[in-house]
Amino acid sequence: MRALYFDGSLKVCQITKPRPKDDEVLIRILCTAVCNTDLEIVKGYMGFTGVLGHEFVGEVMTGSSPLFGKRVVGEINCSCGKCYLCKTNRKSHCPNRSVLGIFNHPGVFADFITLPVENLREIPENLSSEKAVFTEPLAAAIEIFEQVQIKPSQNVFIFGAGKLGILISQVFRLNGCEYTTFDTNRTKIRKAHSMGIRARDLHSLKSHEMAEVCVDCTGAPDGIKTAMSHLYPRGRLVLKTTVAKPEKIDLNQIVINEFEIIGSRCGAFDPALSLLGQNLVDPEPLISKIFDFKDILKAMEYARKPSTLKVLIRH
Amino acid sequence: MRALYFDGSLKVCQITKPRPKDDEVLIRILCTAVCNTDLEIVKGYMGFTGVLGHEFVGEVMTGSSPLFGKRVVGEINCSCGKCYLCKTNRKSHCPNRSVLGIFNHPGVFADFITLPVENLREIPENLSSEKAVFTEPLAAAIEIFEQVQIKPSQNVFIFGAGKLGILISQVFRLNGCEYTTFDTNRTKIRKAHSMGIRARDLHSLKSHEMAEVCVDCTGAPDGIKTAMSHLYPRGRLVLKTTVAKPEKIDLNQIVINEFEIIGSRCGAFDPALSLLGQNLVDPEPLISKIFDFKDILKAMEYARKPSTLKVLIRH
Repeated sequence: MRALYFDGSLKVCQITKPRPKDDEVLIRILCTAVCNTDLEIVKGYMGFTGVLGHEFVGEVMTGSSPLFGKRVVGEINCSCGKCYLCKTNRKSHCPNRSVLGIFNHPGVFADFITLPVENLREIPENLSSEKAVFTEPLAAAIEIFEQVQIKPSQNVFIFGAGKLGILISQVFRLNGCEYTTFDTNRTKIRKAHSMGIRARDLHSLKSHEMAEVCVDCTGAPDGIKTAMSHLYPRGRLVLKTTVAKPEKIDLNQIVINEFEIIGSRCGAFDPALSLLGQNLVDPEPLISKIFDFKDILKAMEYARKPSTLKVLIRH
Repeated sequence: MRALYFDGSLKVCQITKPRPKDDEVLIRILCTAVCNTDLEIVKGYMGFTGVLGHEFVGEVMTGSSPLFGKRVVGEINCSCGKCYLCKTNRKSHCPNRSVLGIFNHPGVFADFITLPVENLREIPENLSSEKAVFTEPLAAAIEIFEQVQIKPSQNVFIFGAGKLGILISQVFRLNGCEYTTFDTNRTKIRKAHSMGIRARDLHSLKSHEMAEVCVDCTGAPDGIKTAMSHLYPRGRLVLKTTVAKPEKIDLNQIVINEFEIIGSRCGAFDPALSLLGQNLVDPEPLISKIFDFKDILKAMEYARKPSTLKVLIRH
């Protein structure tokens, strides 16, 4: 089958079709999307070698499965189910896990993948594959609400209007709170406005403007500093940014202001599918371009441009 | 009156007795204690100039006050009561506040102080001044439980068996959880043991030993790193340490492991007085030595020694 393979350099090549293990099914890939993590891996993050990609919609090909012929999305962490973390509702942190297209598990930029049945969620019929492929990043946005109680009476600053920042903004919009999304990129601010999101140029943010909750999804090393300087004492700061270089931050400020800093990663798929299925979150305007799989190298190149939001690939 | 004055160097001198403002009363100091913050101020922290000290027991001297003749302790933050933070239950973070012996308010290493009536709490008759003087640091220990839900079924690692670390350990002991307190100083570990606290040498802590909650009260810049390396994913780390130099920490680890980092400072006095009054927390073994006020320079010197716990001063 065809696959986008990374071993220090990126290439499209023919590899053997994967064979599902006992708890797995074979999935034919229909649609995928490029995530920043894919671009980071190409820069060396995680030291991953293999088939890239983890955001997908596919069709279950294993005849014996109740999901046979259904369109599905799939959670990316494949956990052992036996360790302390799995048993205490932290499967996505299982130390024995593999992660689709990121760690020890071939990714979705290919014709077929295998995944454990328990990772799969059927897609509602009325939901297009082009929207359903946003399930994984939307789940990551919703994860914030699994971790932190956001009171609708609180004000929120979201730093970064990239694809994750806009999905996060869309979820905060549903909460009723007074949120504002900041970015320095005017194209992204305009896009946010066109989607009904309250977005402002970061340069217009005055030093006395403060929020009870800040979210850093800038993807920039100094994002946390900006967020901390606009956070009320006892405020909560959700960190979505992972960066290559550890940043020096003033820990005294955390203690003196009694800040709460919350790291946030992957989330559960069911609430994301629910919001997409009801059209309460519409990710379609985030699609910058759709490529055919034969042009996937061009797609990766295009995803790297600063003003590009989501790049989709039809398989 | 006599006072310990700091203006780059420490000296005992005669200064004018303070006059209470409308909302304040005059207090004769009976007993005080040296806090690490006092020692940090002498090193330049906060750039404070004036009378040092903020942990005290005193007697109200203002005849018109209902507290006249009573023994009291006092919260150290004097807030405006009018700003957004005061009105949202964050008086200790009031941007217009002064702080007893730390910022813009003369401290307690003197014969008299003035404080707003609303800062004062009467001491139960059965509670000695030598124990009541621990109200402020014990309140800071209890603050952790105001901020974080500690489940009695969780395990907790407390890093640092200094005076604050031992008070924190005493409060965790009352929760019923499986806590362990770590230090490298054998004298402090022995002291903790003698107080019935589960303490271990930090060197005996193996890399695979993990906790759901970690508390860093080492006072050392690398305390947070040690704590983070023994925290389960989705674990919570309470930061009590303020250090002169900002430390470089790996923010990616916070995101990937979905850690929650909570800065923690001053706490409310009522619960602290309640625990002391019922003898549920006995701070007396923490007293390393009691000095007379005339020897306060020696007391400050003694407080600086690594194995010294609490130094008290009788006025």
